[in-house]
Amino acid sequence: MVTSPVVNTYPLSSYTFGTKEPKMEKDTSVADRLARMKVNYMKEGMRTSVEGILLVQEHNHPHILLLQIGNTFCKLPGGRLKPGENEIEGLKRKLSSKLAANSPSLQPDWQIGECVAIWWRPNFETIMYPYCPPHITKPKECKKLFLVHLSEREYFAVPKNLKLLAVPLFELYDNVQRYGPVISTIPQQLSRFQFNMIHP
Amino acid sequence: MVTSPVVNTYPLSSYTFGTKEPKMEKDTSVADRLARMKVNYMKEGMRTSVEGILLVQEHNHPHILLLQIGNTFCKLPGGRLKPGENEIEGLKRKLSSKLAANSPSLQPDWQIGECVAIWWRPNFETIMYPYCPPHITKPKECKKLFLVHLSEREYFAVPKNLKLLAVPLFELYDNVQRYGPVISTIPQQLSRFQFNMIHP
Repeated sequence: MVTSPVVNTYPLSSYTFGTKEPKMEKDTSVADRLARMKVNYMKEGMRTSVEGILLVQEHNHPHILLLQIGNTFCKLPGGRLKPGENEIEGLKRKLSSKLAANSPSLQPDWQIGECVAIWWRPNFETIMYPYCPPHITKPKECKKLFLVHLSEREYFAVPKNLKLLAVPLFELYDNVQRYGPVISTIPQQLSRFQFNMIHP
Repeated sequence: MVTSPVVNTYPLSSYTFGTKEPKMEKDTSVADRLARMKVNYMKEGMRTSVEGILLVQEHNHPHILLLQIGNTFCKLPGGRLKPGENEIEGLKRKLSSKLAANSPSLQPDWQIGECVAIWWRPNFETIMYPYCPPHITKPKECKKLFLVHLSEREYFAVPKNLKLLAVPLFELYDNVQRYGPVISTIPQQLSRFQFNMIHP
């Protein structure tokens, strides 16, 4: 039989959560965000962003850590790479910026794993596709999602304006209305993995 | 930078298509199908089925080969494993049964690649999930989707009652109404691959 790649998951209760100074969104509207994207594209070319899928378990089912802004909008921890920045190093930098304490001694040793999905933004618009559409020669953004393998113990410091949620796969699945097309199909992208749920 | 796994694709025109005797569906209704599934489960336990994702290119965009039954219903080539059968061998057997000529000299040398998704059927119902739902200890079916790496030349023999279609990823994407939840999210599962479109 073919063996699936294994992902160890630990209970949410293994982890410790604190807070840190707020990380405000750079834009206050979608229009502002797309306008800033355009300005950056003129300067630096296609944006590459990287996001991390951090898994925990609750009730024997995998959950993903999402950052909630306000009462509804959820996003994966991650962000935009600097021009020329290595994807793995950039994702570690972004995870630390979003989820780690400021003290260097409390930084998790982020273990970046498999790339599970790549999304393309063909135009300065919100819509993205899991392929570069035909006839698009200059996509405006490429977003890559990576598994992040957590250790048995971690300390997370969550910016005060955000909430960190552990959302079960069954809540994400088929829920594009609440989570959008990128996050709501993470269960399908993780289906090929075998979850080794460790109960310490 | 992280390198994506590469999949070579060849133009649809590289391949030759013939026909062979019809392969009729074993059941004439969904109710019949679920009833037969139940009988088989009593005898053999959980059903494992395997399906192949065969890729070609047209207009510089990846297309998937689907078998169409009647005017609307599409499925991936594949089927149910015999009890204890190896997944890879079983998929090769099913691909030959659905797509190869009967002559042994015309059998493709099927190259089975990565498992890209696993779906679970918790009950004797049509609904499947990309995870085994919590509290389900005895799932009724596990369906695994594998990439099949085609060579530059192949001869396919399609059962006379079926049509073989090359469907572009952009047609499958976000089209659960027409293709169902399993096939319509194949573009997301393939997004992590890099398609090397070969133009001979």
